[in-house]
Amino acid sequence: MTPARLEIIALEDFPLVEPGDDIAQRLIDRAPNGGYRDGDILIIAQKIISKAEGRFANLKCISPSKEAKALASKTEKDPRLVELILSESTEIARHRPGVIIAVHRLGFVLANAGIDASNVGKSDDHVLLLPVNPDQTCLDIRSTIHSETRAQVAIIINDSLGRAWRHGTMGIALGAAGLPALVDLRQKLDLHGRTLQASIVGLADELAAAGSLVQGQGAEGRPVALVRGFDPFDRESPVSELVRPASEDLFR
Amino acid sequence: MTPARLEIIALEDFPLVEPGDDIAQRLIDRAPNGGYRDGDILIIAQKIISKAEGRFANLKCISPSKEAKALASKTEKDPRLVELILSESTEIARHRPGVIIAVHRLGFVLANAGIDASNVGKSDDHVLLLPVNPDQTCLDIRSTIHSETRAQVAIIINDSLGRAWRHGTMGIALGAAGLPALVDLRQKLDLHGRTLQASIVGLADELAAAGSLVQGQGAEGRPVALVRGFDPFDRESPVSELVRPASEDLFR
Repeated sequence: MTPARLEIIALEDFPLVEPGDDIAQRLIDRAPNGGYRDGDILIIAQKIISKAEGRFANLKCISPSKEAKALASKTEKDPRLVELILSESTEIARHRPGVIIAVHRLGFVLANAGIDASNVGKSDDHVLLLPVNPDQTCLDIRSTIHSETRAQVAIIINDSLGRAWRHGTMGIALGAAGLPALVDLRQKLDLHGRTLQASIVGLADELAAAGSLVQGQGAEGRPVALVRGFDPFDRESPVSELVRPASEDLFR
Repeated sequence: MTPARLEIIALEDFPLVEPGDDIAQRLIDRAPNGGYRDGDILIIAQKIISKAEGRFANLKCISPSKEAKALASKTEKDPRLVELILSESTEIARHRPGVIIAVHRLGFVLANAGIDASNVGKSDDHVLLLPVNPDQTCLDIRSTIHSETRAQVAIIINDSLGRAWRHGTMGIALGAAGLPALVDLRQKLDLHGRTLQASIVGLADELAAAGSLVQGQGAEGRPVALVRGFDPFDRESPVSELVRPASEDLFR
């Protein structure tokens, strides 16, 4: 099942995305020569999904609560941004001056609840929130591409996130469809016939990181990566399965 | 600098590795048709580096200390394994029944201090420790390949590690040479001319994850992935640069 060879290709000339745009149709329009194939995996930057969903917020229209003002004071952040962080989160995991690590309502633990102020493309007062339901959006895009092209592709929405313990961001999956976000290898035997340990693999996250290598982070304007070389998957599970519940998490 | 297209290829028929084996020579022997090219990145599974370095430990020869026995009792683990975990670590970050998360002496935060009991290939009493100095090993392998073939390749040693907050392991870099483990994009402007935020990228980790996609985790016997499509790097920094010091880490 593990492929011995993969290609990772940035889709060329992907247009800037505006609120209301049909991302699935844009993906079909930008398919590589020969079109999509069964087993292709499309890795889409969170930013264009959020833009298509119109997930902009205008800081000028936010009235910070008392709680937001207090946290803003402790973290030296804009109280209006902190108000948005709180409204997107179920819990603040950590904070210190310059840093707020929040538990997003989708379960992801991330800086500023994933709210983004770069490449937003409006005025400096606009920020961009995470997509509303990334797993569902992936299912929808996969379904539209299948209806229109007959190709069974898998879809991942990725974002560049910071991690505990390590410097630097890496691509991580926020949503997935058409593939197992988690792959359980525990039933298999290793080369010496022993049961593999610690072998539940975050496949969607590894793909999200691989996609980042060609998407770039900045001025490239290449929000979509195509990973080609996997066989079509016979099982699928969403990224919500990747989220470790607070009760099992030793690092919240 | 971000490539628009990459290939990830598992090196074929890589032989089983024994203590004392010359990994650089094995890599040269298994080069793809046409040999290595400048800019190629070789991603090597930790396990074969540890084996080549003879980093086996025989549990039968370990006498657990009082401290190891106490922690073994709390975590329901073999006291001899716990003794090894303690000797490989500077600190135990978290523990509970079945789980020990340690800060390895190299700075990595990982389960069981990275000690591995699968695919070790000896008796059930043998386990495998992490390589002694993975960044240095990468430099050495890179240097030997350059001397022998004139190709300027980059090297990463990767391992499949668990994470905070998410289920499932993913490929992460333990060592690197010939590329910047961290890439700082903060000087660059985004598509709209604004400075990018949060844009220090853990390139070595993203590559380590991408390599995992073709290495597989288990019975495939494909410990080396070649990533092809990057230009040669004009800067290099080690994985030790990826380790967040305890004083800056909010999640220890």
